[in-house]
Amino acid sequence: MALDQTSRALIQLALAEDIGPGDLTSALIPETTRGSATLLAKQDLVLAGRAAFDEVYRQVDPTVEVKWLLDEGSVVKKGTDVGTISGPARSLLTGERTALNLLQRLCGVASMAREASQAVAGTSCRVVDTRKTTPGMRAMQKAAVVAGGAYNHRFGLFDGVLIKDNHIGAMGGVKAAIESARRIAHHLVKIELEIKSFDQLEPAIEAGADVIMLDNMDLATMTKAVEQTAGRALLEASGGVTVDRLAAIAKTGVDFVSMGALTHSAIAADISLNWSE
Amino acid sequence: MALDQTSRALIQLALAEDIGPGDLTSALIPETTRGSATLLAKQDLVLAGRAAFDEVYRQVDPTVEVKWLLDEGSVVKKGTDVGTISGPARSLLTGERTALNLLQRLCGVASMAREASQAVAGTSCRVVDTRKTTPGMRAMQKAAVVAGGAYNHRFGLFDGVLIKDNHIGAMGGVKAAIESARRIAHHLVKIELEIKSFDQLEPAIEAGADVIMLDNMDLATMTKAVEQTAGRALLEASGGVTVDRLAAIAKTGVDFVSMGALTHSAIAADISLNWSE
Amino acid sequence: MALDQTSRALIQLALAEDIGPGDLTSALIPETTRGSATLLAKQDLVLAGRAAFDEVYRQVDPTVEVKWLLDEGSVVKKGTDVGTISGPARSLLTGERTALNLLQRLCGVASMAREASQAVAGTSCRVVDTRKTTPGMRAMQKAAVVAGGAYNHRFGLFDGVLIKDNHIGAMGGVKAAIESARRIAHHLVKIELEIKSFDQLEPAIEAGADVIMLDNMDLATMTKAVEQTAGRALLEASGGVTVDRLAAIAKTGVDFVSMGALTHSAIAADISLNWSE
Amino acid sequence: MALDQTSRALIQLALAEDIGPGDLTSALIPETTRGSATLLAKQDLVLAGRAAFDEVYRQVDPTVEVKWLLDEGSVVKKGTDVGTISGPARSLLTGERTALNLLQRLCGVASMAREASQAVAGTSCRVVDTRKTTPGMRAMQKAAVVAGGAYNHRFGLFDGVLIKDNHIGAMGGVKAAIESARRIAHHLVKIELEIKSFDQLEPAIEAGADVIMLDNMDLATMTKAVEQTAGRALLEASGGVTVDRLAAIAKTGVDFVSMGALTHSAIAADISLNWSE
Amino acid sequence: MALDQTSRALIQLALAEDIGPGDLTSALIPETTRGSATLLAKQDLVLAGRAAFDEVYRQVDPTVEVKWLLDEGSVVKKGTDVGTISGPARSLLTGERTALNLLQRLCGVASMAREASQAVAGTSCRVVDTRKTTPGMRAMQKAAVVAGGAYNHRFGLFDGVLIKDNHIGAMGGVKAAIESARRIAHHLVKIELEIKSFDQLEPAIEAGADVIMLDNMDLATMTKAVEQTAGRALLEASGGVTVDRLAAIAKTGVDFVSMGALTHSAIAADISLNWSE
Amino acid sequence: MALDQTSRALIQLALAEDIGPGDLTSALIPETTRGSATLLAKQDLVLAGRAAFDEVYRQVDPTVEVKWLLDEGSVVKKGTDVGTISGPARSLLTGERTALNLLQRLCGVASMAREASQAVAGTSCRVVDTRKTTPGMRAMQKAAVVAGGAYNHRFGLFDGVLIKDNHIGAMGGVKAAIESARRIAHHLVKIELEIKSFDQLEPAIEAGADVIMLDNMDLATMTKAVEQTAGRALLEASGGVTVDRLAAIAKTGVDFVSMGALTHSAIAADISLNWSE
Repeated sequence: MALDQTSRALIQLALAEDIGPGDLTSALIPETTRGSATLLAKQDLVLAGRAAFDEVYRQVDPTVEVKWLLDEGSVVKKGTDVGTISGPARSLLTGERTALNLLQRLCGVASMAREASQAVAGTSCRVVDTRKTTPGMRAMQKAAVVAGGAYNHRFGLFDGVLIKDNHIGAMGGVKAAIESARRIAHHLVKIELEIKSFDQLEPAIEAGADVIMLDNMDLATMTKAVEQTAGRALLEASGGVTVDRLAAIAKTGVDFVSMGALTHSAIAADISLNWSE
Repeated sequence: MALDQTSRALIQLALAEDIGPGDLTSALIPETTRGSATLLAKQDLVLAGRAAFDEVYRQVDPTVEVKWLLDEGSVVKKGTDVGTISGPARSLLTGERTALNLLQRLCGVASMAREASQAVAGTSCRVVDTRKTTPGMRAMQKAAVVAGGAYNHRFGLFDGVLIKDNHIGAMGGVKAAIESARRIAHHLVKIELEIKSFDQLEPAIEAGADVIMLDNMDLATMTKAVEQTAGRALLEASGGVTVDRLAAIAKTGVDFVSMGALTHSAIAADISLNWSE
Repeated sequence: MALDQTSRALIQLALAEDIGPGDLTSALIPETTRGSATLLAKQDLVLAGRAAFDEVYRQVDPTVEVKWLLDEGSVVKKGTDVGTISGPARSLLTGERTALNLLQRLCGVASMAREASQAVAGTSCRVVDTRKTTPGMRAMQKAAVVAGGAYNHRFGLFDGVLIKDNHIGAMGGVKAAIESARRIAHHLVKIELEIKSFDQLEPAIEAGADVIMLDNMDLATMTKAVEQTAGRALLEASGGVTVDRLAAIAKTGVDFVSMGALTHSAIAADISLNWSE
Repeated sequence: MALDQTSRALIQLALAEDIGPGDLTSALIPETTRGSATLLAKQDLVLAGRAAFDEVYRQVDPTVEVKWLLDEGSVVKKGTDVGTISGPARSLLTGERTALNLLQRLCGVASMAREASQAVAGTSCRVVDTRKTTPGMRAMQKAAVVAGGAYNHRFGLFDGVLIKDNHIGAMGGVKAAIESARRIAHHLVKIELEIKSFDQLEPAIEAGADVIMLDNMDLATMTKAVEQTAGRALLEASGGVTVDRLAAIAKTGVDFVSMGALTHSAIAADISLNWSE
Repeated sequence: MALDQTSRALIQLALAEDIGPGDLTSALIPETTRGSATLLAKQDLVLAGRAAFDEVYRQVDPTVEVKWLLDEGSVVKKGTDVGTISGPARSLLTGERTALNLLQRLCGVASMAREASQAVAGTSCRVVDTRKTTPGMRAMQKAAVVAGGAYNHRFGLFDGVLIKDNHIGAMGGVKAAIESARRIAHHLVKIELEIKSFDQLEPAIEAGADVIMLDNMDLATMTKAVEQTAGRALLEASGGVTVDRLAAIAKTGVDFVSMGALTHSAIAADISLNWSE
Repeated sequence: MALDQTSRALIQLALAEDIGPGDLTSALIPETTRGSATLLAKQDLVLAGRAAFDEVYRQVDPTVEVKWLLDEGSVVKKGTDVGTISGPARSLLTGERTALNLLQRLCGVASMAREASQAVAGTSCRVVDTRKTTPGMRAMQKAAVVAGGAYNHRFGLFDGVLIKDNHIGAMGGVKAAIESARRIAHHLVKIELEIKSFDQLEPAIEAGADVIMLDNMDLATMTKAVEQTAGRALLEASGGVTVDRLAAIAKTGVDFVSMGALTHSAIAADISLNWSE
């Protein structure tokens, strides 16, 4: 899938900051020298970020050929070749670091997303991401979350209403806030409300929230909330969620569990380019 | 210190991806409502990224006032307020996530840099970063490394020559490569050469490398390399370095140890905005 | 309300295309000459586009002062002064045409939106806009629609799912399409399905569409659809809607009627700058 | 003809505002599905805007093939196919709205320009456009005016001098203004002066204006002005011109009649994409 | 006078290429240190480029204060202070080179323009510039030409028609070319035709050229051309013009003499910043 | 070699300022007319700027074919054809001026660089450029310097430390300044210090400067400095250097001589496009 304009602009910035006025070391290599390399997974991982990797080389030198041996979202064992690149040696080396910086981070996100989605497998609960993404990389990270088998939350501030405590005060109460949102937001967007205690639940449902976020609640309270709601709204668990808590949360019956760690704490996967002699 | 053009452009992208055509939820708050919040450290950390945080609000709404209670690079205990923001409530909320996404990541880098620099304290060895930075955030991450007490390696491909294995083949040997580099690179830039085994050391020194990178060597070999070099070149240890290996590496006598983890594996620090009632 | 990045970029383009390397005529006026003018409504209209007008002068010359005598969304009688500008005469003249081109078009949209919203007053039916907006002006036109008392549909392709005939074929039927959408789109986004005949209605409801678009149906069919649906989905009338058909459509009981004419056929309102002697 | 940089930038903005981070609905279609459609004129019109339509798809996906069955400027009967597109179904659908929004508006302008040029056919009077264009679309609209058989006035503030009342006061009279303009403007640019009453005509001619704009004058005064001028300057009629007044104005003998309505009041032509099964 | 968008963009590029990710040397100075300097003319010159100099510091740090002691276009003797700057020492030093690079080049152009305009003083011949300008600096260089007392030719390819030999062939002769130009170009733009020999003159006049460029003709031919033309068209001498040939060319009676050297061969004037202790 | 992002952006600005909304004259040529031309050296020169010339036509019209008959850096005799272009006549003419403006200036720089490098031939002294480059053209000019046989100094403020008088005061002395630089600048960057008198030399060496710039010193002092330094630092002569002083300076034994004139005073070389009939 082609990248959106923001992702392409981010890659342009990344190349500018790395290459600047020119790559002093690649300049030592004769202009006509060609090279090739294989992309090797040095750990188990989920492959994600192919389009970003492609775009780096498209911008550096469109004559570089990138071939993928595996699909986006593939579960890859350590030691597997996932793709190859070939073309002018200078261009290959100049783009290497930026291409890997992106790919490694995105495979890291996908790998964590897979781990998370496996933890709730067999339940109807979906693990979703948050807006705690790396600045400029949101679209690419959200695609990586999907590649790993988890789901997306809203993309940003513009495609969903999520009313929090600090909004409600300024708006004159939950009911007024939701009514106001129905007037302002268009009719393809749902309204979510964050609550911090069980006693806020029924008023939220009655005010007409489509989705209710249970912020930092314990498992017992979540279970009680699911029973009380009885399908009148969707429920999302949120707050400091880690992979090992996922299975228990899913069992409470909530519809979604959002997990900032998918994008703010995923560790870059170890992938390297192995150069052919 | 003001941010460079790339960092400002990255922040513009980050705001665009989060706000898009408009913040649906903040739009519910009356335009004239004002608010304020304190920035609270929810863990021990090193403060870094103040300029990025400032720039977010400068772009969102220049009437928002950001006040810092502590200097860049301050060592901060959990529970400390590090700054305050005040201004139109809509603007404060609209910028919150992007500002925090940046600040948390940069404090994370600075905190890890501090841990690393403490590990080599008392030796003459410097911990330096690498080009394994988050795309678009290099300048900000490198500033955070310094704020944490560690040091920078070259910024990119343009301000230092670093000749690796895959360059040397294409260039016809170490000696030819370095001679060629002296001709192409300007006289304020040094030339570093990566070696993978001890027997490449003496030829590298003789070829005139200013700095020699000892790639993935064990402690004994590093020690031997320091002795053999005897000050004729600077030595940099590199390859899968973690904080707990730093002290031992520093003791070998190498001048620098580079550590990709500073920027690719630092975990976002926990900082939040606490809204005033 | 501040403008989003795209609107500001559009205004920059508009100024570039009009001013280019410089305003040859204003250059004839002494640099220190100051001027002022009043913005006069030369027809009945709804005021919209103040932020766009402000932004033009902010970009041309931040020392120009724009004062508004009436709020965004005000219903204005012909002959009313709606605002004033004052500052360096050169700057006032250089920005005049671009500022008016925007304001006149946006007041035109708001005025038509008001006419449309009045036509359905007293019913629960909302008139909404479409994506048939002027390229680059979507955010500003959608704000003008709201200023005129009508409502917005989704902003673009990214904040709502709207499945049309030409999608369904490629997706293997309505049911498969909606299931697929539930998997791909996040949980704050609703799914709308366009149908072209009454017999597609029940399958659409059963497949779980949140909103069903009744494309180019006559009033009797719409009425029948409202009865059949009985609140199980929201209904949107669509297709060649004009102001004089609105009241009758609203009476059928549909929830929304979308009207491309709001943005593709609104006529620029007549507003001029009257220069003080 | 290729588009200028501003038009390409406008199209980039238009795609960004419509697609944002991604088209949620097209994402439902398999990536390999291909499609095709014909562009059908649903009303009589003049074809204009082919380059804009091409550019939309060039930016969305360069593998989409656009074929035109008719030349720019062709007079097209309702029901005629004017072109076809084919390529990846996702890309076709993602670009559809933006491509049509442009084409419909530009055909609208060309169609009105044709009507206007027909109204003065057989006289030496030329209908010309104004700067009352849609922000960001000036170059494309002016090309559409020519495609419809009318003519362009100056492009912007930089390629012609047009001195109005509010300039003259600040410049110390007509004579001083024109002398000053001759000094400042280069020698391939003419100087036009706007007059509001017949008694300003002779002074304007004597001051050396190349072109004189007769602002809001009645037919009798225009006729008198043509006689009085006797070829010593070019004359342009201006002010609230509609198509049905054109023939009478042309008969007065003026050289040009400028008509803002060509670009500010042209109605988008009805063209649609008909998808192949 | 404010700068146009292109000039501001050029200055942004110039600062980016000089400062990149940061000024390593200024970083050594304490952030709070303030400084000041005077701008000293180290040779006789004409002052031009004040707006460019201002813009550099506006972009580097808006708190830097630039004060000009002399007007744009002033004739300045060696040893004169022309302005002062003061503000944070880091910012002053960081912007210094870019600000001077622009100012020195623009004063160089203005100084040569003055020399040229003096050479034709007392005649009605105007020295005009060409499109042989420094890429990206056209607007600033053309303003400098005016500051020096010479005149501008058309700004670019869009604000004047200039038909050359290589156009005429493709257009089917002079007459056809000019007729075609009258149809395509708007009525505030004149048409110039380049001729290479005397016998092309009368046909050019008869075809209706507004201006005729006499390309590389000797003084005698120019004189003959002036006589033959007898005011029926404007005449422009062109081709390898140097300052010492100007007086003789002006005496032939041509209206304009264009001189590429004004912008392609002007030498940067010697101006420096003298720092206060 | 491909151009860096800044150079491509500069070329985009240059085309925008020249073409604006469109080339009025080329529009007269039928769209299908093709043409070709040869690039002729009208003086002895060194060829440089091929990539810039290529990029102009790549941006104007990628179907234009540019063929080079000689390599970058070739020494070319007056009257030699250096390349050819062919393609749509409109595109060739539209790009001509911008392409030549760049090529002529860059050949001018390379030609002067060759003259300079010849002057020091046979010595170990290198002629290097400075930051006194044309705004926006630094990367292209520095490549031209190399094409002519001279060498580059640092690219900008970010890839080398160069401490001058006005820095030292603010930093508390030479020793403190260099120590501070060692801490702030990374280990692949050298530190240069400017001195203005012989007695500053020994302190500079002792403080550990890698390179010492001898500012405006006479030959005798330079010779003495070389002796005194005895290889403990690199020495760079600087200040008002002209080609005829180079040989003598080189004989003093300094390692480098920097020459601003290479980029601020090189005269555009005379190259023209000769159109085929």
